[in-house]
Amino acid sequence: MLLEAIYHRPKGCWSYGYDDQTIHLRIRTKRNDVAEVQVLFGDKCAPWADMQIAQMGVIASDERFDYWQATVHPPYGRLQYGFQLLSGEEQLWFTEKGIHDNPPTEHLGLFEFPFLHAIDIHKPPAWVNEGIFYQIFPDRFANGDTSNDPVTVEQWGSKPTYTSFNGGDLQGVINSLDYLSELGITVIYFNPIFEAPANHKYDTGDYLKIDPHFGDKETLKTLVKACHERGIRVILDGVFNHSGVTFNRYLDVVEKGTESLYYDWFHINEWPLEVKEGIPTYKTFAFEATMPKLNTANSEVKQYFLNVGRYWIEECDIDGWRLDVANEVDHQFWREFRQVVKNAKPDAYILGEVWHDGMAWLEGDQFDGVMNYPVANAILDFMVFHNMDAFTFAAGIGGYLARYPQQVNEAAFNHLDSHDTVRLLTLCKDNKEMMKLAVAFQFTFIGAPSIYYGDEIGLSGHFDPDNRRCMEWELAKQDKDLLLFYKSLIALRKAHPALRKGTFRALTAEKDSSLLVYERAEGDDRLIIIMNAGKEDVAVSLSLPIGEWRDVFSDEIVNEAPSIFQEQLSSYDFRILSSCKLESRTNH
Amino acid sequence: MLLEAIYHRPKGCWSYGYDDQTIHLRIRTKRNDVAEVQVLFGDKCAPWADMQIAQMGVIASDERFDYWQATVHPPYGRLQYGFQLLSGEEQLWFTEKGIHDNPPTEHLGLFEFPFLHAIDIHKPPAWVNEGIFYQIFPDRFANGDTSNDPVTVEQWGSKPTYTSFNGGDLQGVINSLDYLSELGITVIYFNPIFEAPANHKYDTGDYLKIDPHFGDKETLKTLVKACHERGIRVILDGVFNHSGVTFNRYLDVVEKGTESLYYDWFHINEWPLEVKEGIPTYKTFAFEATMPKLNTANSEVKQYFLNVGRYWIEECDIDGWRLDVANEVDHQFWREFRQVVKNAKPDAYILGEVWHDGMAWLEGDQFDGVMNYPVANAILDFMVFHNMDAFTFAAGIGGYLARYPQQVNEAAFNHLDSHDTVRLLTLCKDNKEMMKLAVAFQFTFIGAPSIYYGDEIGLSGHFDPDNRRCMEWELAKQDKDLLLFYKSLIALRKAHPALRKGTFRALTAEKDSSLLVYERAEGDDRLIIIMNAGKEDVAVSLSLPIGEWRDVFSDEIVNEAPSIFQEQLSSYDFRILSSCKLESRTNH
Repeated sequence: MLLEAIYHRPKGCWSYGYDDQTIHLRIRTKRNDVAEVQVLFGDKCAPWADMQIAQMGVIASDERFDYWQATVHPPYGRLQYGFQLLSGEEQLWFTEKGIHDNPPTEHLGLFEFPFLHAIDIHKPPAWVNEGIFYQIFPDRFANGDTSNDPVTVEQWGSKPTYTSFNGGDLQGVINSLDYLSELGITVIYFNPIFEAPANHKYDTGDYLKIDPHFGDKETLKTLVKACHERGIRVILDGVFNHSGVTFNRYLDVVEKGTESLYYDWFHINEWPLEVKEGIPTYKTFAFEATMPKLNTANSEVKQYFLNVGRYWIEECDIDGWRLDVANEVDHQFWREFRQVVKNAKPDAYILGEVWHDGMAWLEGDQFDGVMNYPVANAILDFMVFHNMDAFTFAAGIGGYLARYPQQVNEAAFNHLDSHDTVRLLTLCKDNKEMMKLAVAFQFTFIGAPSIYYGDEIGLSGHFDPDNRRCMEWELAKQDKDLLLFYKSLIALRKAHPALRKGTFRALTAEKDSSLLVYERAEGDDRLIIIMNAGKEDVAVSLSLPIGEWRDVFSDEIVNEAPSIFQEQLSSYDFRILSSCKLESRTNH
Repeated sequence: MLLEAIYHRPKGCWSYGYDDQTIHLRIRTKRNDVAEVQVLFGDKCAPWADMQIAQMGVIASDERFDYWQATVHPPYGRLQYGFQLLSGEEQLWFTEKGIHDNPPTEHLGLFEFPFLHAIDIHKPPAWVNEGIFYQIFPDRFANGDTSNDPVTVEQWGSKPTYTSFNGGDLQGVINSLDYLSELGITVIYFNPIFEAPANHKYDTGDYLKIDPHFGDKETLKTLVKACHERGIRVILDGVFNHSGVTFNRYLDVVEKGTESLYYDWFHINEWPLEVKEGIPTYKTFAFEATMPKLNTANSEVKQYFLNVGRYWIEECDIDGWRLDVANEVDHQFWREFRQVVKNAKPDAYILGEVWHDGMAWLEGDQFDGVMNYPVANAILDFMVFHNMDAFTFAAGIGGYLARYPQQVNEAAFNHLDSHDTVRLLTLCKDNKEMMKLAVAFQFTFIGAPSIYYGDEIGLSGHFDPDNRRCMEWELAKQDKDLLLFYKSLIALRKAHPALRKGTFRALTAEKDSSLLVYERAEGDDRLIIIMNAGKEDVAVSLSLPIGEWRDVFSDEIVNEAPSIFQEQLSSYDFRILSSCKLESRTNH
């Protein structure tokens, strides 16, 4: 066994409370290097003879490592543990004291998870992994009230520019709820809706006021109420890393300079506020002069924005926050933000925009989930850009799953595109089969899928501003086939617990191959998904577990005794097979 | 290069703010496998051409790994980085995207430390690593007021039992301040002093009252004031994991059962409160029925104990808390505890009793430091029990240093024994040379040394209750040689910045050898310490860096050109050499 590959460190993603009674323990070994891993565990104050043993199973693998997990229940809240690794004749023990040939004989020196406290468990709202998100860029989704249009409003459907407005508003969303209900989505994530000069509203002017071009507080109340009646939740975009330059605290600083009571609300390096050789004299989002960075460590600023976090929940009953540039705001602010938000609504969802490793925000004290850019990028690399093979893709996904506690993965926000990226269909160079393949993976992976408005009816677009085109409401211009496809995947996800909370296991993912086979399973519900991400057809010959396997869409039995699935899968084609009884299956 | 050995994950001990302008970056490689490591770093929004390169140096090594560190200053608060590893002809790059042969050419895919916020930096009080702690078990240190003695008081110096009292009190400590000042200590850590039935007071009855056998609030005020006048700080022992059975909230539950308003203040599995086959029907410290575990997740309980944390700072001006069984209390409680304590006194020290890996409490949001049991155990294993060689010892110490951010190591609480362990002199089987060697390491290592009362005058004792003997005040019975030794080490530590805040580097630590040579260095101040932890004499021949090296105690020059230190070091002997100018050195 390669000792340098063995890794475990208590807490983080290696030992964590999963629920009030359950701790997950994980260990890493070199890939395909260790045959069996057991964990010895028990209470440090109970007799040594009471120690128990649990088998560990590989839950994920990446390029170099296998990740093993065991589920244990500490009998009295306290937990001590040590790992036993077996490979052929070789046998090792791994405890806090290091790697040894001999088994531990006493509690001293074992790893410790001192006490399982419910309050410390990372516990995202249960509705998140049951959910289907739909992201709306308000100015471009639907214009339900022309009376509030900006003076410079362009015609619906005109080519967007950085500064153009199209009149979309909250009433438009209210008017479209039948469409959204029929599509099957269960959560709307709104890009910013507070008063701000830019069409994207990421330069907030007034955090306590709905942008008048979108409506007002009453409109939002009505919208949220109407959504709730349909079983749709609503989360808003909170831009607390920076404000816009029309924010009254910032205007006060501009006016009064160092005399301003709000001078310390921002990060001002030197006075006056200006841009020198491209660099503002104050900290900003990127080097964007119109987005001055907020000093969230200042207690007045903190109180102000904690109040914003509470206000919209209490006033309009929103269901959570998506937090912009979340990883550039201090941790202490988010810890207090979580307290305030969860006090106002215990099952509110707190979703952080973190493009990189998010573990430092996901220990139960800050966010419920992060936007899953690493997985989105892997999907695109494998299925769209073809710059990785099935092995590398599955390894990337495996490494990602191993990086976070299970409940983090279950509550991840899985998008493929957004207002910040090129549209999926455009990335796919308008190849709909390729797009469907990526979406099929998105909807059959762990975590909640999110649809960027219009993707489902064939909206395309390059980078900002082109990725923010107006929603196409003219039925003749909507891609009905794509819409039907999205609906069927949504229905499939709702029908199968395996897709919402099941395990993920790569079954086939070879080097230099485009064939990916994986399993999702939860109790009796078991799905096997077969995908060809390549440009060429692939002959698939697969031995299925014993049982009757049916294609979830055609409902046809795909295997015959002796459980062989044999088929030519064309480029970008995929099959989703289910072994559960017909009655519980979704038909299309 | 062994790829499986390479490790880095942002945050924790791998990338952290050291001060407002500084981030430390670390990476792990297989020991002696990599010749050179560089880090490419810069702002993700600045041009790629602005990226800088910093060399990394090995700051510690354990049995299998080298740990490299670089100090970088993010120009605008944001930081992205990637590592370049070199070994002979081989050259690798390690970024968030994995290990690659080719250098990164764009910001995308680099590791990220999103923003350096002062508020998130783990910053222990500056006085801690300047300090010398002295731990006092109040009933046994000094009896300054016989009028408050327990009825059952035993004669001073009588053999302690689990239940005996000897009349020690706060007035006794006040009366002994000349002794403590002369010894040179700068912080007193008191075992519990609040009202409680047991002699150790870990079964608190009243958290807001000094035990009447020790004095009252006024006595504590007087004591702290007197200490402060002498430059001595005072920290108290906070037992918030559990109370005693005379705590009025617990008594209320005993009396009223499920009707008690305080029923949820504890973790009661089933009513009535009783012990069944050795296991209480309520959660406790260990299975100790007299120490019911407090439900610190209950908001009333939380408020109560947060108030206790604040109360003694505000009332008596204490300088911090040592927290008993700290790792079995929930993280959320400690996060709020830190806020309350630091608000009351920004430079208060929060020290957690954590015997195992403490990283989860040391991210800047909970404790300032933990009791350094791993290092204490390594010192004892190497120097006292002789069950490890110099290589294993240095590897253990190296692994320990790599486990925590640098400022955590600098503010660690380094004890060798306590009220929970056998006395050091007894562990050494009364071999004073052996004891001095261990103490010499303790005082020349990173972190603040702590003396368990009486060790310095030769107090011995086996496990509880024997390790809690009365302090020996009869001068004739004090070990003057040992006392002088402690004083000289304290003076040495005060004289040398290298000992208080310098780097630690093992220079010689071979397998099957008892010879340990290490360096402490801070700017011009540089010490080389040579120790023989074995039972046999060792011939030492050492090439010293160019300069005049003197023995810090004898002030004699030990090396002659060409910088060779050559000496027979007898069993348990050590030499501390300094190259700094005579004027700044301490003489004895």
